[in-house]
Amino acid sequence: MTRYRGYLIDLDGTLYKGERVVPSGLGFVESLEERGLSYLYFTNNSLRRPEQVAEKLRGFGYPAKPEQVVTSAQATAAFLTETLGSPSVYAIGGEGLKAALSEAGCRLTDQSPQAVVMGLDPAFTYDKMKTACLAIRAGADFYGTNGDLMLPTDEGLLPGSGSLCAGVAAATGVQPRFIGKPERPIVEYGMRRLGTTPEETLIVGDNMMTDIRAGVDNGIDTLLVFGGVTSPEEYRNGTVRATYTVGDLKEWEFI
Amino acid sequence: MTRYRGYLIDLDGTLYKGERVVPSGLGFVESLEERGLSYLYFTNNSLRRPEQVAEKLRGFGYPAKPEQVVTSAQATAAFLTETLGSPSVYAIGGEGLKAALSEAGCRLTDQSPQAVVMGLDPAFTYDKMKTACLAIRAGADFYGTNGDLMLPTDEGLLPGSGSLCAGVAAATGVQPRFIGKPERPIVEYGMRRLGTTPEETLIVGDNMMTDIRAGVDNGIDTLLVFGGVTSPEEYRNGTVRATYTVGDLKEWEFI
Repeated sequence: MTRYRGYLIDLDGTLYKGERVVPSGLGFVESLEERGLSYLYFTNNSLRRPEQVAEKLRGFGYPAKPEQVVTSAQATAAFLTETLGSPSVYAIGGEGLKAALSEAGCRLTDQSPQAVVMGLDPAFTYDKMKTACLAIRAGADFYGTNGDLMLPTDEGLLPGSGSLCAGVAAATGVQPRFIGKPERPIVEYGMRRLGTTPEETLIVGDNMMTDIRAGVDNGIDTLLVFGGVTSPEEYRNGTVRATYTVGDLKEWEFI
Repeated sequence: MTRYRGYLIDLDGTLYKGERVVPSGLGFVESLEERGLSYLYFTNNSLRRPEQVAEKLRGFGYPAKPEQVVTSAQATAAFLTETLGSPSVYAIGGEGLKAALSEAGCRLTDQSPQAVVMGLDPAFTYDKMKTACLAIRAGADFYGTNGDLMLPTDEGLLPGSGSLCAGVAAATGVQPRFIGKPERPIVEYGMRRLGTTPEETLIVGDNMMTDIRAGVDNGIDTLLVFGGVTSPEEYRNGTVRATYTVGDLKEWEFI
């Protein structure tokens, strides 16, 4: 009898690292397929559309379809339309964020929006920051796709979505509501897409502060794999406890 | 016998508001001239060069020469060269900041700088933020011209220099050392330019948290004028105490 019927699997640091595939990740997903278990690719990245994420995964050898991808952009768009109807939104972010918001029925505008949504934006400017601040001061709600302060890349640790939000929060005195891991909205959205209960779901990832906290804070079991962001030493010194830890995904027994 | 021989006078909110002169400011500066008292125009604004600041003041009718202007950019450049010699600096900011740093002997570069200096930058981008973060992670010292989180303008409260710094601080975990009001470096630099002791100096301004704290934190008397940033009610509810308060600069008796 299999306990976990649905897997929410982190991408960068877990299934690949930068531009290199994690070989045991391929075996892991293959085993899920063979056992007929449900799974979704579960990422805080809001830059790319699901089709682009799936294409990148297929490039590494994963059997990824766009409908198997959950991004923080999609979770944010779903959260906004559930709570605000079809709101007008000023969005700072990449193509993935703007597409997700539009597809969910949000109207994108920089004129008197009901909500400001910030994700990672390599084309971020002072003018965008200014537009966001004036809208928030005029009463717009403030959302962040995800609170990650840093983005690990081959160039080094670059500013993440949460650091862009920090500047707007400082200038307005308003803290954003974050949607991505480890927050509840993306976890609930992921389970709804999987069609599983919390008891049947397992969150898999390499990052103690996003993947594992997403489980711990929302009552879902977790599998931490070392070799990505969180080292065994950091984990030992930390206070967040995963349900299971492995040094390599090939150790997992699909209980 | 005149107690205060040297005045450090704030600009925006004190001598003018946006594009309108404060008429009693003109009388105030005229009285300083008649009495032969020393004074400097003392601003946290780092965007413009002293010549440009003086020109703006002359446009309002003030008898301003470039050598009477103290900007946070000049104070930052002076502080850097005193503490680091002739450092290589990655500067984010306007023409005023870059000119001040170059004139003081700093070498501007985006390659392995010894220091990162951030001021207000209407042309701020993600790429600049990224360059700053990578430099700070590689060991560069981190300075901010001034910590103002907001910038009052006719458009509303825009993001200030301190809010741009907040994003970089979030992404690096390193807090900047601020130079402008209310910090000590700009106050010491202003007195050195005036040639007065703390006991002989008076800081004049409209902002309790920058102008008046600059005096309180550094043992210098202060004159708070209402009608700019700080209202009488905010002042009553605050904990920062000015040495003197006036509703209008024409009430000041030049003791």
